[in-house]
Amino acid sequence: MAGTNSELELLAEGPAIILVEPQLGENIGMVARAMANFGLAELRLVNPRDGWPNEKARSAASKADHVIDNTRVFDTIEEATADLQFTYATTARERYGFKPVRAPVVAAETLRLKFRSGEKTGILFGRERWGLTNEEVALADEIVTFPVNPAFASLNIAQAVLLMSYEWMKSSMEDLSQTLFEPLEQQQATKEQLYGLFEQMEEALDARGYFRPEGKRQRMIENLRAVLSRRALSSQEINVLRGVFGTFDKYGRQTPRGSNGPYAEESVREDGADDA
Amino acid sequence: MAGTNSELELLAEGPAIILVEPQLGENIGMVARAMANFGLAELRLVNPRDGWPNEKARSAASKADHVIDNTRVFDTIEEATADLQFTYATTARERYGFKPVRAPVVAAETLRLKFRSGEKTGILFGRERWGLTNEEVALADEIVTFPVNPAFASLNIAQAVLLMSYEWMKSSMEDLSQTLFEPLEQQQATKEQLYGLFEQMEEALDARGYFRPEGKRQRMIENLRAVLSRRALSSQEINVLRGVFGTFDKYGRQTPRGSNGPYAEESVREDGADDA
Repeated sequence: MAGTNSELELLAEGPAIILVEPQLGENIGMVARAMANFGLAELRLVNPRDGWPNEKARSAASKADHVIDNTRVFDTIEEATADLQFTYATTARERYGFKPVRAPVVAAETLRLKFRSGEKTGILFGRERWGLTNEEVALADEIVTFPVNPAFASLNIAQAVLLMSYEWMKSSMEDLSQTLFEPLEQQQATKEQLYGLFEQMEEALDARGYFRPEGKRQRMIENLRAVLSRRALSSQEINVLRGVFGTFDKYGRQTPRGSNGPYAEESVREDGADDA
Repeated sequence: MAGTNSELELLAEGPAIILVEPQLGENIGMVARAMANFGLAELRLVNPRDGWPNEKARSAASKADHVIDNTRVFDTIEEATADLQFTYATTARERYGFKPVRAPVVAAETLRLKFRSGEKTGILFGRERWGLTNEEVALADEIVTFPVNPAFASLNIAQAVLLMSYEWMKSSMEDLSQTLFEPLEQQQATKEQLYGLFEQMEEALDARGYFRPEGKRQRMIENLRAVLSRRALSSQEINVLRGVFGTFDKYGRQTPRGSNGPYAEESVREDGADDA
């Protein structure tokens, strides 16, 4: 479900995203959504083909209204970047020049450092069909380019914005392995709990003749214990397993299936009876 | 421009992307394009609403035909993942359970390690509207979730696939700051080249009375040299600057603008003459 959730923190800060002559309102809307997903909020458009406001953009933004409502339109890149101190130009094509070329991870770290020191920054994205001109790239401080499949390099504009926004969000994280939620805490069981499982299983299996022939008993016990030890079972998991094996153990120690004893599974099913 | 470029290496390997009950062909197509952008190629669909093949999907894939043509359709997640050894389930919502929850960076590293050891892996993505059910998540080995804006957390399915595909590509890189192309090589100039620039500028400025009053001369020279030293100019840049200042220096050492001397800019313009 898209849309803002007013009970949670709405991140809305960081570099301006500047789209140069975007054509499709849908793309502008998807850019706004991608920005909102990763905490950016300042969208600037240079000479959008279909004017502004644009209802298709609002619809595609999936309720990223705080981005759409504050979008500003300019006639030129120079006007759109006049108040900024540092800008990146995004491009998929090699540009022959002396301007530094950065990976998204490095660019996001640079933007984060400048943001923390109070500098205003922006990222330029080109037209859907042919990106930015060399003259436009020349207005930026540095180039950022994506590590794409060489034979299939062209990113949709909203996807390029998404990747930079995502790296922007990641640049705020102290630990990249951190997640917004975590599994229920679960510690590995004590050895006493594990030995309790061994004992229960081995006793129940022994009563059913599992450890035969006698000469293989020790090896079979070792193999079984190896399987149960390798998983680092938690105490909750050991409880689940003891319940499972306990249920089996309630039935038919002496009467294997097919023996037609009172607890043989086949005969129970035929009776329609239920022993549970 | 999208589409494969046959002269360049086409990456097409790695985890299967499994879309569970996708609704819109456009989304399936954008997923295929995102996969192609970052070198993935194996798309599996579980029970797509509008059947398969789907012309809207092919169109939205922007010529990622090698992905579309090899897409396979299954009735259930169990069938779609039967040959895989390890799967991730993607989710934006907190799931209460004991299943490990990973960030995309960690998940991509895990998938890369398993890929290198020959294991078959996959990533499950849920429906556009409500993702994966808890029962479906339970079929996966681990959960992966994205570091999103808490108040605007919902990613479009194609964008979620894009981010995992991007992290997959990045997990192949030895150095995350590496880029597909680099600026022309440019080394810092030698001090002799820098001192040549100082000398030229100071001589030309001195001839025009820049270093006045005389008591401030030394301080003004120091400030000028500080500006020129701080940028670590390359020899190419020093050549550009020497050309610029040399051009100025050709004109009007003795006749400032407004003095109506032969090289004063205003009078040249009025005459329509061109001294160059």
